[in-house]
Amino acid sequence: MIKVGIIGATGYSGVELLRLLAKHPDVDLSVITSRAQVGEAVAEFFPNLRGHVDLTFSEPKRDLLAGCDVVFFATPSGTAMNMVPELLDDGVRIIDLSADFRVRDPAQWEKWYGMRHACPKLLDEAIYGLSEINRQAIKSARLVANPGCYATAVLLGFLPLIEEDVVDRERLIADAKSGVSGAGRKAALDLLYCEAGDSLKAYAVAGHRHLPEICQGLAMACGAPVGLTFVPHLIPMLRGIHATLYGKLIRYDIELQECYEIRYRDEPFVDVLPNGAHPDTRSVRGSNVCRIAVYRPQDGETVVVLSVIDNLVKGAAGQAVQNMNIMLDLDEMTGLREIALSP
Amino acid sequence: MIKVGIIGATGYSGVELLRLLAKHPDVDLSVITSRAQVGEAVAEFFPNLRGHVDLTFSEPKRDLLAGCDVVFFATPSGTAMNMVPELLDDGVRIIDLSADFRVRDPAQWEKWYGMRHACPKLLDEAIYGLSEINRQAIKSARLVANPGCYATAVLLGFLPLIEEDVVDRERLIADAKSGVSGAGRKAALDLLYCEAGDSLKAYAVAGHRHLPEICQGLAMACGAPVGLTFVPHLIPMLRGIHATLYGKLIRYDIELQECYEIRYRDEPFVDVLPNGAHPDTRSVRGSNVCRIAVYRPQDGETVVVLSVIDNLVKGAAGQAVQNMNIMLDLDEMTGLREIALSP
Amino acid sequence: MIKVGIIGATGYSGVELLRLLAKHPDVDLSVITSRAQVGEAVAEFFPNLRGHVDLTFSEPKRDLLAGCDVVFFATPSGTAMNMVPELLDDGVRIIDLSADFRVRDPAQWEKWYGMRHACPKLLDEAIYGLSEINRQAIKSARLVANPGCYATAVLLGFLPLIEEDVVDRERLIADAKSGVSGAGRKAALDLLYCEAGDSLKAYAVAGHRHLPEICQGLAMACGAPVGLTFVPHLIPMLRGIHATLYGKLIRYDIELQECYEIRYRDEPFVDVLPNGAHPDTRSVRGSNVCRIAVYRPQDGETVVVLSVIDNLVKGAAGQAVQNMNIMLDLDEMTGLREIALSP
Amino acid sequence: MIKVGIIGATGYSGVELLRLLAKHPDVDLSVITSRAQVGEAVAEFFPNLRGHVDLTFSEPKRDLLAGCDVVFFATPSGTAMNMVPELLDDGVRIIDLSADFRVRDPAQWEKWYGMRHACPKLLDEAIYGLSEINRQAIKSARLVANPGCYATAVLLGFLPLIEEDVVDRERLIADAKSGVSGAGRKAALDLLYCEAGDSLKAYAVAGHRHLPEICQGLAMACGAPVGLTFVPHLIPMLRGIHATLYGKLIRYDIELQECYEIRYRDEPFVDVLPNGAHPDTRSVRGSNVCRIAVYRPQDGETVVVLSVIDNLVKGAAGQAVQNMNIMLDLDEMTGLREIALSP
Repeated sequence: MIKVGIIGATGYSGVELLRLLAKHPDVDLSVITSRAQVGEAVAEFFPNLRGHVDLTFSEPKRDLLAGCDVVFFATPSGTAMNMVPELLDDGVRIIDLSADFRVRDPAQWEKWYGMRHACPKLLDEAIYGLSEINRQAIKSARLVANPGCYATAVLLGFLPLIEEDVVDRERLIADAKSGVSGAGRKAALDLLYCEAGDSLKAYAVAGHRHLPEICQGLAMACGAPVGLTFVPHLIPMLRGIHATLYGKLIRYDIELQECYEIRYRDEPFVDVLPNGAHPDTRSVRGSNVCRIAVYRPQDGETVVVLSVIDNLVKGAAGQAVQNMNIMLDLDEMTGLREIALSP
Repeated sequence: MIKVGIIGATGYSGVELLRLLAKHPDVDLSVITSRAQVGEAVAEFFPNLRGHVDLTFSEPKRDLLAGCDVVFFATPSGTAMNMVPELLDDGVRIIDLSADFRVRDPAQWEKWYGMRHACPKLLDEAIYGLSEINRQAIKSARLVANPGCYATAVLLGFLPLIEEDVVDRERLIADAKSGVSGAGRKAALDLLYCEAGDSLKAYAVAGHRHLPEICQGLAMACGAPVGLTFVPHLIPMLRGIHATLYGKLIRYDIELQECYEIRYRDEPFVDVLPNGAHPDTRSVRGSNVCRIAVYRPQDGETVVVLSVIDNLVKGAAGQAVQNMNIMLDLDEMTGLREIALSP
Repeated sequence: MIKVGIIGATGYSGVELLRLLAKHPDVDLSVITSRAQVGEAVAEFFPNLRGHVDLTFSEPKRDLLAGCDVVFFATPSGTAMNMVPELLDDGVRIIDLSADFRVRDPAQWEKWYGMRHACPKLLDEAIYGLSEINRQAIKSARLVANPGCYATAVLLGFLPLIEEDVVDRERLIADAKSGVSGAGRKAALDLLYCEAGDSLKAYAVAGHRHLPEICQGLAMACGAPVGLTFVPHLIPMLRGIHATLYGKLIRYDIELQECYEIRYRDEPFVDVLPNGAHPDTRSVRGSNVCRIAVYRPQDGETVVVLSVIDNLVKGAAGQAVQNMNIMLDLDEMTGLREIALSP
Repeated sequence: MIKVGIIGATGYSGVELLRLLAKHPDVDLSVITSRAQVGEAVAEFFPNLRGHVDLTFSEPKRDLLAGCDVVFFATPSGTAMNMVPELLDDGVRIIDLSADFRVRDPAQWEKWYGMRHACPKLLDEAIYGLSEINRQAIKSARLVANPGCYATAVLLGFLPLIEEDVVDRERLIADAKSGVSGAGRKAALDLLYCEAGDSLKAYAVAGHRHLPEICQGLAMACGAPVGLTFVPHLIPMLRGIHATLYGKLIRYDIELQECYEIRYRDEPFVDVLPNGAHPDTRSVRGSNVCRIAVYRPQDGETVVVLSVIDNLVKGAAGQAVQNMNIMLDLDEMTGLREIALSP
């Protein structure tokens, strides 16, 4: 059994990690930390876990964590980077669900996150945990930077077009819609039911901190810098991201549907829908799948890609477990076969 | 492997049955019928099942179904009663999720359902599939009438009080709140998003067709007729039932919390919350659990019980699978260990 | 024109007051205070008011407020009681939307609100602003305690039964369901979209602080103490209260429908629905109306009353404006004729 | 008083027309027709209108309608075109909320609506009722084609850019998000609460029937054909459209914010937000306003415009009343000053 620790498990990614790992056949959940909740039973804090998780929250102490094979960070920005170096020294492998190790350029990171990076040297070692482009590197990684939810949906949607130079990589548009859980579990006014309910808005149009991560991932895929306009929207739903992607065609000799089907033929968690289908976010609710459809409306020069994920699963906890499976040479789908809950 | 058929799998109970059975380790899904969808791939109709169910909908033909060990009916009222007799003759065991065999008195049934019962003789043989009161009988049953969602929540909430004569059984009140999926998947105006959304109403206050089923279940538990006022409400949420139950205390020598804990100590799918907790419906979303809390406000003469289930799982498909497990002598929890999805 | 001030207008009752008063033909909005938002344009804080309100938030200064004819308090508990005495001395008439002056017995109030009352002497003078029982007293009141939202829905629902001794006043049950805005606009975890969305729970079943207000109102109506079990529920919707009320009949010589119709015949904001109708909360969304239906299921001994209001209008800001109209001898409906928004 | 008739008032645009016209000071509602509901009281059908509308639904008879000054059509496609010619002959002025007269080219219309146009000759006379571009023509129009909701949001968002040749008119993108009421009030499975709730999807990506209307409107504004990619999305909310518009800058000598503010300076129902603001749909819920913000992210070559309306008000009934006010030389804002309901 793999001994697993979770640091900062009181948010939405945290409870999803617990939901998935509590049923993972090869995992022994051994430490769950939260400074604020020390001593409280996890199943009292998250009643859906009653009967499934018997642990209590503990302090994030190094000696306890050092006994783990894998530690997940489900913490706000700026926490993991302060604890990861010593855990690596202790021989623990790390999967960080926060943004601390996603952006390779510390200057970029510091600009968007407004703090100094505590261990910029590790940025080169950290592997960006999008298995669909980095599976080999993840296998042997000590430190995996688990992709953000927006980045996952946008990258998986654009990859086939970018890798094959089908669209103008300097003029990409990602119109992304996210359920409210994407903003995390924090007592902020604009996340109240009565602020976000039955309403819709764009936010951070002038610039969103996930932009550099997405651009870096796209550049990684096509080997050149890209130009991306990224507009996120807050949608009155619990979970789910729907990325609507627009690209200007520069090659017309490729059959788009086929291009996607071939690219993702062997990917266990990417599902290319048949021609003419529209994925809805509930078709992935609670599951680790990304569903994609590709269109060329009016046979024009614009490609439209629809890419949906559950932001808390393929966009966070599920992808993290997928990375763990890869790192530990387990069947990649272990513990991730759950069917989406619909309705 | 158990060969399973599902008749009428295009509704919400149907898709839940498919979700649960597709992952049940002992089940071989062999026939899925729908007259309206014959020939269509199930996974095209229900995109959340893509990659999990490869069957297509077929006609409900006797010879196909006769090869099944168990057949589930997830049909509207009045369908099962016409097909069950011949399937029983073929040696198939039946779990009927509709209301056809729930009420023992055909006159009562005919009054509320507005049609003649096609096989009243089977009403005596049919076992009411609430395992918490009928587990032994279910084991050997040929025909199980799976309880309705309201009945499940109300009965599990009242049982300890009724069985121990703690409250006046002639003056029970059940104020029940249901998510919209409880009304089924049918193109009716009042189930539209814009009719049911961001609003709340009671309905059928003068009399709801689930009343006789609930009264019969309560009477079964206490061995005497009961008086129940039942008021159902439609709530703007997808799933979940919250039954708020009121009883007038007639015995004061019983510690209520203990009474519930003892009654359900060995029940795998009933969870009595600690003193002072309030179950929310999301704590059971997608899971087969009923969570219950009991109160005596202001130490008065009124007991208040809060009972929540997922109407599509413990209130329909999950309970049906639980019954199948019992009938086939499997571990009762097989295929039903999924943790509730929250948020 | 009536000069009006609003103290603490940054919550949901506050923005509703602004919405209603900005269009009230006899009102001149002259002071809007908020310590936290001083200097900010009201229409920047509440974008729905852009083009309708030109004021900025100011400090709640006595001299400014002293120039008002009427001041509304839309503040948390414990604020109004510290400012009201001096404003009354200045000749300002007060409508307090908070709970500070609702409960006549200071000991009761202090028990439930956990603080000392700053001016218990005013509790006798304060008029409980439910016009349907107190219209005459409101006319000349200097200080009106505007009823709470739960109290409004429950009292209007029970009044005809209680006043005519139709039900046992010692055994009343109010099962109340409220949209999330009823909990106010504050950054609390359990009011987040992802905590309250697509889920339902009861809360404060052991005892809710609105209980004494409701009991006092009922006692006022029947001239004797009452026994009430009150169970509030949080519903995933923005606005609206649905109170489902249960009483045990003790008189059978009264026709219930008629009893309600006669009682409310001349009330401009209480609408008794015809026999067999079920009010939904959206039928009063944004309007100052209470809609009521009354039932006697199965001709039994239990009366069921359904009473719906918009918690922010008839349950708060609308009722406050109604009280102002009465106090100032305006047509009671002035500024309150808006039709409910549906869907 | 203006005598007004409404044909087909049982949908969502219909009930909004009734809500607005019932309070319009210059309007006498005299005929409300619905073939399906003949004889039923309008206020029974739409309980929010109880106390405000006393009419019953009648047959759409020519003689009754001929007595009206203005008749609104709130009917499905294909109805108005069969009744309009004779009503015009009777001297009635018409405002058609359906799509029958929006597209000038009958071939285009017939292609997208799948039927022959009954009176193509009137297409030239019909005035497209977007007052922000056609106010003069509307004044004297006999027949106004009220714009669709998507078209209104997209056109108002693009107008300043298009009119000033700021962006490449051949490469416009409109990513539009609509609440469910935009799809109308009809018993269709995909509009059920449990199908559309807590989920999000794009639809009709290959081609949506509102595309020709939008393209025609854009072409009207810039005097040349345009290229538009239009992707509509269904959002789990009752009302509201949020159009996120993308254009490629071709002129850099114009200050975008100023361009919008100047263009809409005198428009009573278009509100340009200050720099850096993001309109949410609830800020226009129930009101006739379009709120717009304009961005140039990362000072790049892409302009992003955010445009929100209430699809049932500025996108349907409110705009229709606005057109009526213009046609009858009333103050354009009469009956349309209502403040948006928020939360």
